[in-house]
Amino acid sequence: MTLLYEGKAKQLFTTEKDDELRLVYKNDATAFDGEKHDVLEGKGQLNNAISTLFFQVLEAEGVQTHFIKKISDTEQLVRPTQIIPLEVVVRNITAGSLARRLGWEEGQALQDPIVEYYYKDDELGDPLVNDDHIAALQVAKAAELEEMRMRALHVNDILLELCQKANILLVDFKLEFGMQDDGTLILADEVSPDTCRFWDAQTKEKMDKDLYRYGLGSLQSGYENILSRIGGVIHG
Amino acid sequence: MTLLYEGKAKQLFTTEKDDELRLVYKNDATAFDGEKHDVLEGKGQLNNAISTLFFQVLEAEGVQTHFIKKISDTEQLVRPTQIIPLEVVVRNITAGSLARRLGWEEGQALQDPIVEYYYKDDELGDPLVNDDHIAALQVAKAAELEEMRMRALHVNDILLELCQKANILLVDFKLEFGMQDDGTLILADEVSPDTCRFWDAQTKEKMDKDLYRYGLGSLQSGYENILSRIGGVIHG
Ligand SMILES: Nc1ncnc2c1ncn2[C@@H]1O[C@H](COP(=O)(O)OP(=O)(O)O)[C@@H](O)[C@H]1O
Ligand SMILES: Nc1ncnc2c1ncn2[C@@H]1O[C@H](COP(=O)(O)OP(=O)(O)O)[C@@H](O)[C@H]1O
Ligand SMILES: [Mg+2]
Ligand SMILES: [Mg+2]
Repeated sequence: MTLLYEGKAKQLFTTEKDDELRLVYKNDATAFDGEKHDVLEGKGQLNNAISTLFFQVLEAEGVQTHFIKKISDTEQLVRPTQIIPLEVVVRNITAGSLARRLGWEEGQALQDPIVEYYYKDDELGDPLVNDDHIAALQVAKAAELEEMRMRALHVNDILLELCQKANILLVDFKLEFGMQDDGTLILADEVSPDTCRFWDAQTKEKMDKDLYRYGLGSLQSGYENILSRIGGVIHG
Repeated sequence: MTLLYEGKAKQLFTTEKDDELRLVYKNDATAFDGEKHDVLEGKGQLNNAISTLFFQVLEAEGVQTHFIKKISDTEQLVRPTQIIPLEVVVRNITAGSLARRLGWEEGQALQDPIVEYYYKDDELGDPLVNDDHIAALQVAKAAELEEMRMRALHVNDILLELCQKANILLVDFKLEFGMQDDGTLILADEVSPDTCRFWDAQTKEKMDKDLYRYGLGSLQSGYENILSRIGGVIHG
């Protein structure tokens, strides 16, 4: 089976079926445009488990995703799709680049969620883009962009509710959408502590990739914490 | 008469009338967040003359502006307004930060103009912001933002036509709007080679502040060139 794509955190392989790909979660952790890189035992397994739980909940709530099923500790079967090269970011609480952009402290609750689009291009450093930039880049039509925004906000509503039950603050997260041959959009990639900021609702303790980015503690302990809280809410 | 505000390029004084301010164009040139600074003899005079011509044309075309009249070589009378802290940038051709953001060469004509908003905050480095950031910052309501966009595109149409007649490419420009007590918006600040990129239509020679930014030649010669071309079209 051919390796279609190897990214920083995952590999994508063809399968014997045209409409199924094998997505492999790696143990690699990277930050700051790849400047920082480490292999963290158990990370792939944790992200696969957490992303699977989130995709199952989203599917159950009627969100169309690329997720088919989990097939091993580190692997999922997913539907192939044409990834739209935009990182769609939804934010509920200020953190990271948003805090720097607005000149606000981290941890400020936003009155309404903020949606941002970043152009997925490592060489350019994934720049923030607005609707006009996206039109010029021809990566999405205005109606598609509006649909991605609506879907991202719907995903936010679902994840917010789930996180609240699990005593987690959903600070922000990044989504990637794919365009199907018939013109419909599906949620692709992953939903994990690599791509979401999760804080403990009381202590504001970080349980996501910021642990690794800023050397704040064990990434694996944070991710295990997320998995057990979310899994507890879903299964228990 | 009190100095109300001193910026990098202009001073704003009260007058004996509540509804009139005196705007003084200085000879100071700055670039790269004030890292580069020089005093260039004649610059204030040139910008005042050019900005006056542009505001007169815009007023004649029905655009509401703060401009009342030119009162000396370096001074204008303007209406006081509550400046909305957004730089509204309109772009027709790639240059500067847009070329870097999209990873395109300078000088590419855009199919449709791109409008960008930058949050006017020197400490933050005037970051690019989207509609959601602007809502969170509470600097403009959605309807006001849409109105600024429409007005900026109208200004673009007017300036494009004028520049074309003057054999100038209007590459991009920055506007500032003010909110009047009655809730209406007016175009304020300046429209000059400090705030617009102007290229010769044939040779693509730069005739704007990039001459100073990148040390490409005499700023004053470029600005004089713009003044005589625009003045020639308007008066001749
Ligand atoms: N269903 C899918 N079909 C095709 N490509 C996908 C799908 N899901 C995710 N991808 C892409 O596969 C890659 C996942 O690998 P990852 O290591 O996250 O890459 P990156 O380093 O670009 O973040 C990403 O480029 C992502 O856009
Ligand atoms: N009609 C007006 N009423 C009030 N303020 C104005 C008006 N026109 C321009 N201004 C403000 O006056 C200042 C002009 O000075 P300038 O040297 O360009 O400042 P800056 O260094 O902020 O660019 C700007 O802050 C601008 O927003
Ligand atoms: Mg990725
Ligand atoms: Mg200014």
